[in-house]
Amino acid sequence: FRSKLPDVGTTIFTVIGQLSAQHNAINLSQGAPNFAPDPKLIAGVTKAMQDNHNQYASMSGFRPLKTLIAEKVATLYGSHYDVDDEILITASASEGLYSAIGGLVHPGDEVIYFEPSFDSYAPIVRLQGATPVALKLALPDFTVDWDEVRAAITPRTRMIIVNTPHNPSGQVFSARDLEMLAQLTRNTDIIILSDEVYEHIVFDGERHHGMATHPALAERSVIVSSFGKTFHVTGWRVGYCLAPAELMNEICKVHQFLMFSADTPMQYAFAEYMANPETYLSLAAFYQRKRDLMQALLVDSPFKLLPCAGSFFLLAKFDHFSDESDGEMVKRLITQYGVATIPLSAFYTDGTDNKLIRLSFAKDEATLRAGAQALCQLK
Amino acid sequence: FRSKLPDVGTTIFTVIGQLSAQHNAINLSQGAPNFAPDPKLIAGVTKAMQDNHNQYASMSGFRPLKTLIAEKVATLYGSHYDVDDEILITASASEGLYSAIGGLVHPGDEVIYFEPSFDSYAPIVRLQGATPVALKLALPDFTVDWDEVRAAITPRTRMIIVNTPHNPSGQVFSARDLEMLAQLTRNTDIIILSDEVYEHIVFDGERHHGMATHPALAERSVIVSSFGKTFHVTGWRVGYCLAPAELMNEICKVHQFLMFSADTPMQYAFAEYMANPETYLSLAAFYQRKRDLMQALLVDSPFKLLPCAGSFFLLAKFDHFSDESDGEMVKRLITQYGVATIPLSAFYTDGTDNKLIRLSFAKDEATLRAGAQALCQLK
Ligand SMILES: CSCCC(=O)C(=O)O
Ligand SMILES: CSCCC(=O)C(=O)O
Repeated sequence: FRSKLPDVGTTIFTVIGQLSAQHNAINLSQGAPNFAPDPKLIAGVTKAMQDNHNQYASMSGFRPLKTLIAEKVATLYGSHYDVDDEILITASASEGLYSAIGGLVHPGDEVIYFEPSFDSYAPIVRLQGATPVALKLALPDFTVDWDEVRAAITPRTRMIIVNTPHNPSGQVFSARDLEMLAQLTRNTDIIILSDEVYEHIVFDGERHHGMATHPALAERSVIVSSFGKTFHVTGWRVGYCLAPAELMNEICKVHQFLMFSADTPMQYAFAEYMANPETYLSLAAFYQRKRDLMQALLVDSPFKLLPCAGSFFLLAKFDHFSDESDGEMVKRLITQYGVATIPLSAFYTDGTDNKLIRLSFAKDEATLRAGAQALCQLK
Repeated sequence: FRSKLPDVGTTIFTVIGQLSAQHNAINLSQGAPNFAPDPKLIAGVTKAMQDNHNQYASMSGFRPLKTLIAEKVATLYGSHYDVDDEILITASASEGLYSAIGGLVHPGDEVIYFEPSFDSYAPIVRLQGATPVALKLALPDFTVDWDEVRAAITPRTRMIIVNTPHNPSGQVFSARDLEMLAQLTRNTDIIILSDEVYEHIVFDGERHHGMATHPALAERSVIVSSFGKTFHVTGWRVGYCLAPAELMNEICKVHQFLMFSADTPMQYAFAEYMANPETYLSLAAFYQRKRDLMQALLVDSPFKLLPCAGSFFLLAKFDHFSDESDGEMVKRLITQYGVATIPLSAFYTDGTDNKLIRLSFAKDEATLRAGAQALCQLK
């Protein structure tokens, strides 16, 4: 059978998840919390179900939830989105990324993105008959080389995909990055697709430099975010998209046919819950404590940690003591030390091996301690 | 902005839903129940959330739920699907249809489908750079003319989309339809995509003639079904797909990147709930009572009802007393008589007007009585 994506195998998250389960390993692999969400949020879903909110939501989402998002974005980032025409509730950030690329990228277009990268961008672009153009982020700080981006832009460049805070590196955009991106795209019709699912997880008192903080970028950007990552419920599959009305109109044409509407009771629950901004504003401090703990616990490990400015993830380097591939290292850690991580090479289409593994610290304290202890034992 | 779907406007369900709300009309338009699901099902979601099942499910779905589906399909229809490789839990039947077409249909392919039809098939096909080929079902019984299908098949025909029980006509396939479809596709590599979301809603003691009841068809079919339609929770966004492993492998490549996984607590709840087959086996009698009631109540209306063998829908004809278009009739019914239905022309890409409106009887008795009363008042 002729495949549309012949090179795609089982996702790394499934592969490592299964190996980890087989070996009963401490799981620091997937970017998903292992602790409970706020019981209030669960109560909100139950209430919505009992109040009979169990049928199709409206196509673009539950209006009170969209209103709260508009208010949040205006307050935190200064950009104003029309509740009816510029905000879409999606059934997960993944669906938002798909609907955005599916609605806006035509066959033959080129889409620039940066590696290492979340694994869905390139396949989604290829499914549109378009060409993903991967640029490599420079180690060790994973910054974008904007001159390289300039050189990669062609008349066929339809979109640039950015991601801040960045999965898997934990790095974030600076005000200067935004300025460079704005300069590069000025007077072009290039669309920016910005994956900002970790927008509330930026550390050390820094602010999130998302596209909605920069008016010239907001005008040409589709911003994708996630309730799952923000409220510790990655299995509830609700996210959202922000875009100028003209772009949103095209995104909705895909969303409407691939999903129609997102989960109704969960949208009600999120609307009730996020009416209190503390629910998301507290997130940075919450995860910073986890990052700090993990960094402290790993001081005595053989690994060298790279700096982490946001997200759920820390990268750990091992080339000063081993010449294993990162895949071999991850396998050895699972099978011999009982701790699961992700090899960074999985985030490169060409499998580039920088001798780095990715640890997720979105875990409860006991898991972080046990995971760190296992990593410290590595010989 | 150059649209990938320039002809797509706001979906009829949104348009009628808004007009209906404005006029506070009795809503017989969308195929969604207005009554509560079983409290046990709601309790199941609450329990799953409280038991901490709130993070990503596995990509292909919660295994116990997939096992129950395999058992159901084997018992009711006689086909055997491998739990690991041939069953996928999707985030709605809509997502299943999208992932199937997205994974299997290549640019330049042709896809045959039948009109009137659910509104997503043709746009999804077009989004793949493929050509939807619409064949019209013959009125008044909406049967497929298999000779016409034979004539429409070309070397580029990749897929035939069928739908039984049929939305919007309420008609169903017979054993002969299956036999004709099997004959037509024998020794071809045409894939059948079968939308069977109303599989448990077949009336008058008939059995459901789905693709899984016919081994030669099952071998080349992707079957899509829905938990929302079956358990009165269309807003919960969980469905499933069945397909031979070779096809499923390609469908999963799309599903994995556009959705990754379906809602976790709801998958747990469905798994607990459908362990008792009575939960779905009782559905046919439940909806048959609603159909019968609606037919009885409309005897004194000016409309002539077409026969209805399954699904949520009845078609009502009015050309013997009015030469309005079906759109005008629907508008007049909403604005002057306070009852909302859908014009059948919305289910044809060329807007064919057969002077038919579609009523959904998936409503509580009070709503059916009030809606019928309004329809009886029409002058
Ligand atoms: C949707 S899959 C995995 C979650 C995630 O974002 C990650 O681990 O990188
Ligand atoms: C997913 S939209 C509408 C529901 C439905 O199936 C219909 O009314 O035809």
